[in-house]
Amino acid sequence: MNLPTAEIVCLGNELLIGVTINTNSSYVGEELTKLGFEVRRITCIRDDVDLAVAFFHELFERKPNLVIITGGLGPTYDDIQLEVISKSTNLTLIENEIAIEQIKEYYAKKNLHLTKERRKMGKLPNGAEVLKNNIGGAPGCYIKYEDIDMYCLPGVPTEMKDIFSSIIIPRLKMEARNQIYEIKFQIFNCFESELAPYLNEISKKYSKLYIKSHPEYKDIKGIVIHISGTGKNAKEEVTKVKDSLQEIFIANLPSIKIKEILE
Amino acid sequence: MNLPTAEIVCLGNELLIGVTINTNSSYVGEELTKLGFEVRRITCIRDDVDLAVAFFHELFERKPNLVIITGGLGPTYDDIQLEVISKSTNLTLIENEIAIEQIKEYYAKKNLHLTKERRKMGKLPNGAEVLKNNIGGAPGCYIKYEDIDMYCLPGVPTEMKDIFSSIIIPRLKMEARNQIYEIKFQIFNCFESELAPYLNEISKKYSKLYIKSHPEYKDIKGIVIHISGTGKNAKEEVTKVKDSLQEIFIANLPSIKIKEILE
Repeated sequence: MNLPTAEIVCLGNELLIGVTINTNSSYVGEELTKLGFEVRRITCIRDDVDLAVAFFHELFERKPNLVIITGGLGPTYDDIQLEVISKSTNLTLIENEIAIEQIKEYYAKKNLHLTKERRKMGKLPNGAEVLKNNIGGAPGCYIKYEDIDMYCLPGVPTEMKDIFSSIIIPRLKMEARNQIYEIKFQIFNCFESELAPYLNEISKKYSKLYIKSHPEYKDIKGIVIHISGTGKNAKEEVTKVKDSLQEIFIANLPSIKIKEILE
Repeated sequence: MNLPTAEIVCLGNELLIGVTINTNSSYVGEELTKLGFEVRRITCIRDDVDLAVAFFHELFERKPNLVIITGGLGPTYDDIQLEVISKSTNLTLIENEIAIEQIKEYYAKKNLHLTKERRKMGKLPNGAEVLKNNIGGAPGCYIKYEDIDMYCLPGVPTEMKDIFSSIIIPRLKMEARNQIYEIKFQIFNCFESELAPYLNEISKKYSKLYIKSHPEYKDIKGIVIHISGTGKNAKEEVTKVKDSLQEIFIANLPSIKIKEILE
């Protein structure tokens, strides 16, 4: 599989000290996978400008096609996402009129003024496109830097998901990348290690597909076998591998039970 | 704060494609923070040997004091953690007698034999110390590499937590690092952006402490203010900052309500 690559970057000490469970990255990872991206890394970094800038310099060398950044767009002193992006790309932060208008409007509805702290959220890297935040005060933004599509999003999950689902998903769909096809099924009455040799063998034979056993998979009981592929023959290939695998399992491990997962 | 540094590395495509929410990293992050470490990064990487080896080469250059790795110790072909550690450290994988005994014992209780796939879990980097897994088949291990303490743990949360809490926590406590002292309180009837200027100012004054507002904090309502510090005067300093902040907030934002969080 030669898919476009993506990285997810989550800023915020709360993720590193265990205060917040990172649901943003699993949401974004799942959506990007469905859109045909290979998500190569998820990195959580501290609210520390120097450490974060060093991280982005490394990231730029890896040249992913897409980067989704969450967290650190708010009004407080430790909301440093855009400062970090500015320092690592050399794009100066300047007040963006559209962003300032959106922030003003958001607080005006609550009878609040545009203070210095709120105004800070409208300082975007030069050339950034504003992505409207329909739920909170901090707008997101889009930047193209060295052929990398970078989306800067807030960390509050409802705000992040709103921008991601209303703006980013439709846009990435328009770009008509490979869609993914996947099948999952449950297996009972056996150990993952009993399945391993058969999975091993079939994975070698169908190296373009993703074939994996999960001993724990969300809240689904048993061992979950997950097969996915991309490209125009994906559905046919994935279904064929599923059928072969089930036949092999039943032939070799007569006591197991298989249950299809319908989604 | 000049704390020992730690990184958490989580292996497994399931984390990158959004199948699994990464609760391991928040558990480990919280525990390491309590033990006085500064957790600098959490990275989730794919089950891809080359990409993962490249990642570890970068990590070794950052020279963290401690690395906790989870996931990829199991019997299947895509369980690559120890292969990756071996390739990135040049420590050969060899069958570890103690590990093989533990694996044999685990499967014997279930009337199962030591197959090739199960035996693979007992091949550890040369010189590694075995960490017994009381719950699952795959033992963890400890390696000292270039002054970095590396703990290799399974990805199944119950197994990871068992080894972490029974072996790693007591050991790190023994090393008598700085313990952390922290206070949190809730604020109602205001916006985070109204608190920002006061937090900004006090953070500059007490730069050794961690002072942060969280608009969403676990399941606690309102805005949570979190103050923490380390060292022998931590309790005194953190309490002093809490009192000052509450006074400042009440003086400047008379309509707010403050509620202490007792833990």
